[in-house]
Amino acid sequence: MGRTSDAKHKILTAARTLIEQRGYSALGVAEICKAAGVPKGSFYYFFESKETLALAVIDEQWATERLDWETVLNGDAEPLQRLRQLFEGMRTRQEAGQEGCGWVLGCMFGNLSLEMSTQVDAVRRRLQGIFETQVGLVTAVVTEAQQRDEVTASDASGVARSMVAQAEGQVLFAKLHNDPAQLSTLWPNCSALLGVRDHQLQAQS
Amino acid sequence: MGRTSDAKHKILTAARTLIEQRGYSALGVAEICKAAGVPKGSFYYFFESKETLALAVIDEQWATERLDWETVLNGDAEPLQRLRQLFEGMRTRQEAGQEGCGWVLGCMFGNLSLEMSTQVDAVRRRLQGIFETQVGLVTAVVTEAQQRDEVTASDASGVARSMVAQAEGQVLFAKLHNDPAQLSTLWPNCSALLGVRDHQLQAQS
Repeated sequence: MGRTSDAKHKILTAARTLIEQRGYSALGVAEICKAAGVPKGSFYYFFESKETLALAVIDEQWATERLDWETVLNGDAEPLQRLRQLFEGMRTRQEAGQEGCGWVLGCMFGNLSLEMSTQVDAVRRRLQGIFETQVGLVTAVVTEAQQRDEVTASDASGVARSMVAQAEGQVLFAKLHNDPAQLSTLWPNCSALLGVRDHQLQAQS
Repeated sequence: MGRTSDAKHKILTAARTLIEQRGYSALGVAEICKAAGVPKGSFYYFFESKETLALAVIDEQWATERLDWETVLNGDAEPLQRLRQLFEGMRTRQEAGQEGCGWVLGCMFGNLSLEMSTQVDAVRRRLQGIFETQVGLVTAVVTEAQQRDEVTASDASGVARSMVAQAEGQVLFAKLHNDPAQLSTLWPNCSALLGVRDHQLQAQS
């Protein structure tokens, strides 16, 4: 039993790394097993198909990231400070990734949305759910900021969606230029989308 | 001569369609030739490799799109109207694509940035150049709007970059949900990033 669950963990870890670096389509099961150091039989013991594995990798990745999002957004700081921490933290995360492998790997969910969403329906639905959850988590904090009259934006979930879209677009540029500093304008952009009131902007600077 | 240049055109058209629908990595030269209805020998007569073909597809796509961008942005309308036309036109383009094949295919340059930028250096540089050109074209019009005191944003090229990033993020959502209506907030978002002055917003509505 110990050995088999270890094999599953190795397959998931190898697949995550390979998907982050090269996408999903270019990968084969044989290559994943080789990188994981497990026999091909182990793969099919744990995963029905490459698609099932992709869903497991996505779920594992989101379980980790979601914990970060919730820790920041449900923290004790003031609402705008929590949002700022979340979006500024995206640069730190891309920097850490780049230090690890030399490349800004971007957002796995964004990468797979553009690569797979027209092809694998189960993956598309899973990614839709993740982005909806992200937007929901941000919306709750935007609503708090609205109640404190700190922002002018009236549609909390609309502006939350635009902030997540802004992050995806900026992360795309960071990946394309292999430069996490491309994310330096992300929080000022989010402030503009929120319509952060002047006295709040001054308090932040 | 007529037949050979026709074959080149067929390869480029088939490759563009396949790359738009399924990305680059999943494609093989044999499949492209089959879709184009040309023998494999023709492929290597015109293109050194799949990578050379990808660059040709990107260049052809950008030549077409660039003409659209320049026509809109160098038009006679007032600066903010031209910007609005550009960003609202992105929804129309995705709607047309969806009518053609049933899917919102997104932005080829964004798709390939996320799929290929860590892998094929020549493609990465080409895509960087395209986005820089897009940002430059938008910057020129933002500068006009600044000179007319219609926007509060002070860094023209910074805000232009953020607007293009916003478009890429929203197009990602439109592709993920196969729903061009996701782009309905794109121009209001760009207005917020620009800090369009109140009287200008009223004039637009």
